[in-house]
Amino acid sequence: MTTTHVMAPVDPRRGALRPLGLDQVSLRGGFWGDRQELNRRATVPHIAHWEERTGWLANFDAAAAGTVSETRTGREFSDSEIYKLLEAMAWEIGRTGDEDLEERYQQIVQRVVSAQHDDGYLNTRFGSPGQPARYSDLEWGHELYCFGHLFQAAVARIRTGRGGALVDAALRAADHVCEAFGENGIRSVCGHAEIEPALVELSRATGEERYLAQARLFLDRRGNGVLADIELGRAYYQDDQPIREAEVLRGHAVRALYLSAGAIDAGVDEGDDAYVDIVRAQYHRTLARRTYLTGGMGSHHQDEAFGDDFELPPDRAYCETCAGIGSVMVAWRLLLATGDISYGDVIERTLYNVVAASPSETGDAFFYTNPLQQRRRGAEAADSTPSPRAEASLRAPWFDVSCCPPNVARTLAQLGAYVAASDETGLAVLQYVSGEIRAEVAGGEVALRLTTAYPDDGSVDIEVLAAPESDWTLTLRIPAWAEGARIRRGDAETPVAAPAARVENLRSGEHLALHLPIAPRITAADPRIDAVRGAVAVERGPLVLCAESVDFDDDIDIAHLRIDPDAPLRSTLRGAVAAGSVQEIADSAWPYSADEEPLGAAPAEIPLVPYHSWANRGPSTMRVWIPTV
Amino acid sequence: MTTTHVMAPVDPRRGALRPLGLDQVSLRGGFWGDRQELNRRATVPHIAHWEERTGWLANFDAAAAGTVSETRTGREFSDSEIYKLLEAMAWEIGRTGDEDLEERYQQIVQRVVSAQHDDGYLNTRFGSPGQPARYSDLEWGHELYCFGHLFQAAVARIRTGRGGALVDAALRAADHVCEAFGENGIRSVCGHAEIEPALVELSRATGEERYLAQARLFLDRRGNGVLADIELGRAYYQDDQPIREAEVLRGHAVRALYLSAGAIDAGVDEGDDAYVDIVRAQYHRTLARRTYLTGGMGSHHQDEAFGDDFELPPDRAYCETCAGIGSVMVAWRLLLATGDISYGDVIERTLYNVVAASPSETGDAFFYTNPLQQRRRGAEAADSTPSPRAEASLRAPWFDVSCCPPNVARTLAQLGAYVAASDETGLAVLQYVSGEIRAEVAGGEVALRLTTAYPDDGSVDIEVLAAPESDWTLTLRIPAWAEGARIRRGDAETPVAAPAARVENLRSGEHLALHLPIAPRITAADPRIDAVRGAVAVERGPLVLCAESVDFDDDIDIAHLRIDPDAPLRSTLRGAVAAGSVQEIADSAWPYSADEEPLGAAPAEIPLVPYHSWANRGPSTMRVWIPTV
Repeated sequence: MTTTHVMAPVDPRRGALRPLGLDQVSLRGGFWGDRQELNRRATVPHIAHWEERTGWLANFDAAAAGTVSETRTGREFSDSEIYKLLEAMAWEIGRTGDEDLEERYQQIVQRVVSAQHDDGYLNTRFGSPGQPARYSDLEWGHELYCFGHLFQAAVARIRTGRGGALVDAALRAADHVCEAFGENGIRSVCGHAEIEPALVELSRATGEERYLAQARLFLDRRGNGVLADIELGRAYYQDDQPIREAEVLRGHAVRALYLSAGAIDAGVDEGDDAYVDIVRAQYHRTLARRTYLTGGMGSHHQDEAFGDDFELPPDRAYCETCAGIGSVMVAWRLLLATGDISYGDVIERTLYNVVAASPSETGDAFFYTNPLQQRRRGAEAADSTPSPRAEASLRAPWFDVSCCPPNVARTLAQLGAYVAASDETGLAVLQYVSGEIRAEVAGGEVALRLTTAYPDDGSVDIEVLAAPESDWTLTLRIPAWAEGARIRRGDAETPVAAPAARVENLRSGEHLALHLPIAPRITAADPRIDAVRGAVAVERGPLVLCAESVDFDDDIDIAHLRIDPDAPLRSTLRGAVAAGSVQEIADSAWPYSADEEPLGAAPAEIPLVPYHSWANRGPSTMRVWIPTV
Repeated sequence: MTTTHVMAPVDPRRGALRPLGLDQVSLRGGFWGDRQELNRRATVPHIAHWEERTGWLANFDAAAAGTVSETRTGREFSDSEIYKLLEAMAWEIGRTGDEDLEERYQQIVQRVVSAQHDDGYLNTRFGSPGQPARYSDLEWGHELYCFGHLFQAAVARIRTGRGGALVDAALRAADHVCEAFGENGIRSVCGHAEIEPALVELSRATGEERYLAQARLFLDRRGNGVLADIELGRAYYQDDQPIREAEVLRGHAVRALYLSAGAIDAGVDEGDDAYVDIVRAQYHRTLARRTYLTGGMGSHHQDEAFGDDFELPPDRAYCETCAGIGSVMVAWRLLLATGDISYGDVIERTLYNVVAASPSETGDAFFYTNPLQQRRRGAEAADSTPSPRAEASLRAPWFDVSCCPPNVARTLAQLGAYVAASDETGLAVLQYVSGEIRAEVAGGEVALRLTTAYPDDGSVDIEVLAAPESDWTLTLRIPAWAEGARIRRGDAETPVAAPAARVENLRSGEHLALHLPIAPRITAADPRIDAVRGAVAVERGPLVLCAESVDFDDDIDIAHLRIDPDAPLRSTLRGAVAAGSVQEIADSAWPYSADEEPLGAAPAEIPLVPYHSWANRGPSTMRVWIPTV
C-alpha cells in the first residue's frame, strides 16, 4: 500500500476515479472563486475573531493552566470549531502559501497543543481537575467527535506538506483513541459520528493501518444499542440499527451523513464493495424520499433529524448547513468509488443551494438552517452575542452552536478538490468554474483553462493548455436538467446528454465550448410530498429560485402569490420572472369552511431570485414553492 | 364579596354567565358519560399505579425522610402529576361520594403533606439537603407550576366540601408563595405559567384577596424579560412581551394558554374588562391563524410551541393534549365572562378531537401529541417503561413527561361543569350529552333530562323535569356547522341557527326535540395554510374524520388516496364514506421534475372514521386532510 499525497481532503486507497489536489485545480473569480476568496479574506478572520471573543480558544489556555473547570465557556463540542478553523486555514495556506496566515495558524496551534495530556488525550470539557471524567458521557460529550475534527485538521497539514505540532498532537491523540477504544478498550462509540471518516483519512494520510481498523471497530459497534436509549430514540445517533441492516438515513442528519461518509471510506479502503453498496442504497433512498429540492437534508428542528419518507415541509425545513456539507461528503466519496459522475449533480445542487446560501454576501454572517419558506420577517441578528441557530430570517455572525460557520470555511477552502477527477484514461470535469485544472493522465499532463459566468450563464469555454499526444478522454458532467446541452469543437456542434459527454483526444491549444441551457424551468414535486401539493418551484440551471418579499411592493404579502405554471418564464440576470397573480384572501375567525376560495386575484409578475442569495437585503419573507391553485 | 361554593373548577366573581357544579350536571352514558366512567374506573387507578411505579409519589416520602436528593426519580415537574391525580380524585369523590376512593386519596395526601417544610414550601426537587436551592432555577424548575396544581387540587376539595390536610397544605404553600414572591420578594415568575389561574381560583374558593393580588403580580411581571434569555427565545415562556402588548399567543402552547386563563381570571375578578378583551383578541387571532382543524394548538415539536400564522403542517402537528385542555380552559373562561356561547363551539371541537383522542378505548394509554397525519406505522408502546412523548402512532401507558394523562383525568372528572351555564333569566345548554341538568333561575329550579346518541346522531331530546311557572329562557347552543338545525316543541317545528336558539317558558313535563344535522361535510382550509393546499377534510357534526390504514386493503398506501370533493358523502354509524381514487405513483431517484403527475388512478371508496378513535386497532397510518389534486 502506498501513501498518496494529493492535496485533497479525501484520498481513497481505491476507487474508480482519483481526486485532484488543490494544487491541481485553481478557481479564478466567478461564482465559487469569488466565494473562496471572500472566505479567505473575510470568513476565516471572522471565525478566528469569534472563537477568541467567546473564549472557546482560551479554553485551551485554561486547560493547559489547569483552571479550565472554573472558566470554560461554550458547548461541549466547542473544541471542534477551533479544529475546523485550523483545517480551513491549513487548506488556505496550502493553496496560497500565505505566510501571514501561517503565523496566525501557528499561534492557535500552540495554544491548542499546550492543553494535550501526556497520554495524548485532548479536550477542554472533560478530564481535567473539577471536570467530568473522560468518556463519562459518550452520548453527548462529543470527545471523539472533537478528535475527528482534530484529525481532519491534521490531514490538511499533512496533505499540504507542512506537518508540525498539530499533526504530532493529532497522531498522539489517535494512538490514545486506539488504545482507549480498541479491541480491549471501551466498547462504545461517540454520540456524534465524525471520528470514523477522520480516522480513515488519517490512516490514508499516514499509512497507519491501525487507524483504519479503529474506524472499523467504531462502525461495527454502532447500531447495537451501545449508547443509552434517549427520549429522541437511539436512531438519533444511528445506534438503533447496524449500518449493514439499515435501509435509509435517519435520525440527526449531520451524524447520519458523517457516519455514512466514514462507512464508505472504510468499505472502499477495505475493498468491501458490498458494504459500500449498502450505504449507497441508503443514500439513494434518502435522495429519493427525504431530501429537499435544494439538496438540503433534515426536516425536524427538534432533533435536527430526517423526517419520515416524503415529510418535507418547506417552512420547517431544517436543512442544516452542516448536513448539506455532509451530503456533499457522501456524494463525493460515492463518485470517486463508483466513477458515477452523476453524483456531481447532487453535489452541485447542494453546493449552490445549501452551502452557498449559508454565508452572507460579506462573509461574516451565516445561516445555520436553510428553510424553503420564511413566513415572518425576522429580527436583525445581534452582533453582540451568539444567536439562536434557527430562528431568524437573517444570517447571524455566530451561534451558541456554531458548527456551521467553520464547516463552511473549511469546505470553501477545499472547494477546488470537487471540481474534477481523473482516471487512467483521462480527466472528468465535474463542476463548471472559472479556473484551471491540471492532471496527470496516461500519456502525460492535461491542463485546461475554464472560463465561464456559470451559473448566470450556461456557456463554458474550455481551453486546452496542455494535453498528451496519445489517446485520452475528457469527460464533462452534463447535469440531468440540461436538456438540449451541446458541445462545439471547432466547427462541429454535438448534442450531449446527462450524465456525461466524452470528448476524445483534445490537443493543446484547442478550445471546446460547452453550452448548458439554463433557461428557467418549472419543477413539480412527487405527489407524496404533501406539504408542497398544488405548488411548483422554479429552477434555473443548478439554482433553485425563490420569491423574496423585498422584490415586491410593500402591500403584497407573498403568501398570496399564485404562479401560472403554463405561462412562459422570462430569464433575468441571475433569476427569472414568472407570470401569476396576487390573491385577495379574506380573514375569517375560523380558517376552515366549505368554501375557502380567494375572493379574487390581480395579475402580477413574480420576480424570482436565487435561493442562495435570499436575506441579503434585510429581513424578508421568502418562498421557494409557489402555489398554482 | 361572597365566597361561592359551586362544585366547579372555575367560579368567577363576575361574569355574564354562571357555571354550574358537578352536583348540578350529571352525565349518564353516551359519549362523555361513558368516558367519564372509564376515567373513574380505569384511568384514575392506572395513573395512581404509574405514579407509584415510577417513584414519583415516593419522592414525597423521601423528601419527608430527608433522603430525596439520593433517590429522587422523574422530571423536575413530577410533583404536579401527583397533584393533578389528586384533583381528579377530588372531583370524582365529590361527584360520586366514593368512600373507597376517598381512602386512597387520603393515603396519597398523607404522603404528600408529610414533605411540606415548616414555612409552607413543598417540592421534592429543590430545597432539601443535597438539592439545588429553592427558586434557583425559575426558568426550568417548575416549583411555582407545581404549586399551581397543588392549589387546583385544593380548590377541588374546597368546592366539593371536604377540605382536609391537602387544603391546609395548599393554603400554607400559598401564603409562603405570597411571602416569597410578593412586592418585597423575588421579582420574577415561573417559567411555566399555571400558578396564575390557580391563585385566582384559590382566592375565589377561600375569599383570600391576597392570592388574587399575587396572581396579578405574576401576570404583570411576565413579559418584561424577568427570566433568562434562552436559545428558544423568551417567547417560549411568554416573557418576551407584557400580556397587555401582545397580539397573539406564541411560544410554548400550554404555557401560553394557562397564562391566558390566569389573565382572564384576574381581569374578570378585578373588573378590568379591557384587560380581558386584550387576552380575548389574542385568543381569537390564535383561533383564526394558529389552530388546527381539530382545535389542536402548537405546531412545533422542538419547543412544543405555536408556529407562525398559518404554519400548520398536519404531519408535524404537535397539538399537545394539554394544550387542548388549555384551550378549553381559556374558551370556557371567555364564555362565562362574555356570555358569548359560541365559545362552546371551540370547546366542543377541542373536547371531541383533542381531549377525547388522548385516552385509548381502555383508558390506560394516552396520546401526548395529536398530529393530523401519521405516515409510518409506529411500534407498539412498551408497558415496561415510560415512552417518548411524541414518537409513536400508538398511545402509551406513561411518559417520561407525563403531564397529559392526569390532565385528561382531571378534565374528564370535571366535564359536567362545561355542559351548561346559567344567568338570572335562565339556563344555557352548551354541550349535548345524555344526562341531567339542574339550575336555579329567577323564579325557581329548572331541571332537564337530555337523551341523545350525539355525536353519532344529531337528535337531542330535552325533557323538562322541573321549571318555574314564571318567565324563563332556555338557550341552546347551535354549532356553526349545524346548517338546517331545527327545534320541535309540541307540534311546532322551528328552524334555528348558530350561535343560539332561545326557547321561552318551557314547563315541567314538556319535551323539546333539537335536531342538529350531522351529515358529513367537506371542509377546506384558508389558502394561506400551505401544508394542506389541494386537500380537504371531512367533518361530521363536531367530529373531524380521518382515513386510517386499518380500514384499507394491505396493498393500499393511504398516501396515495385522492378524494372527489364534489361527490356525495355517505354517512356510516360513526363516520362517513367518500368517493375517490387510489393513485399509482412511480418511485423515482429524485422526487422533483417537470412532470410529477400520477401514472393513473383506480376508483376507490374512502372510509373515514372519527379522528379521536384512530390508533385503537393497532399501529396504523392516518390522515385527516385528503388530497383532491
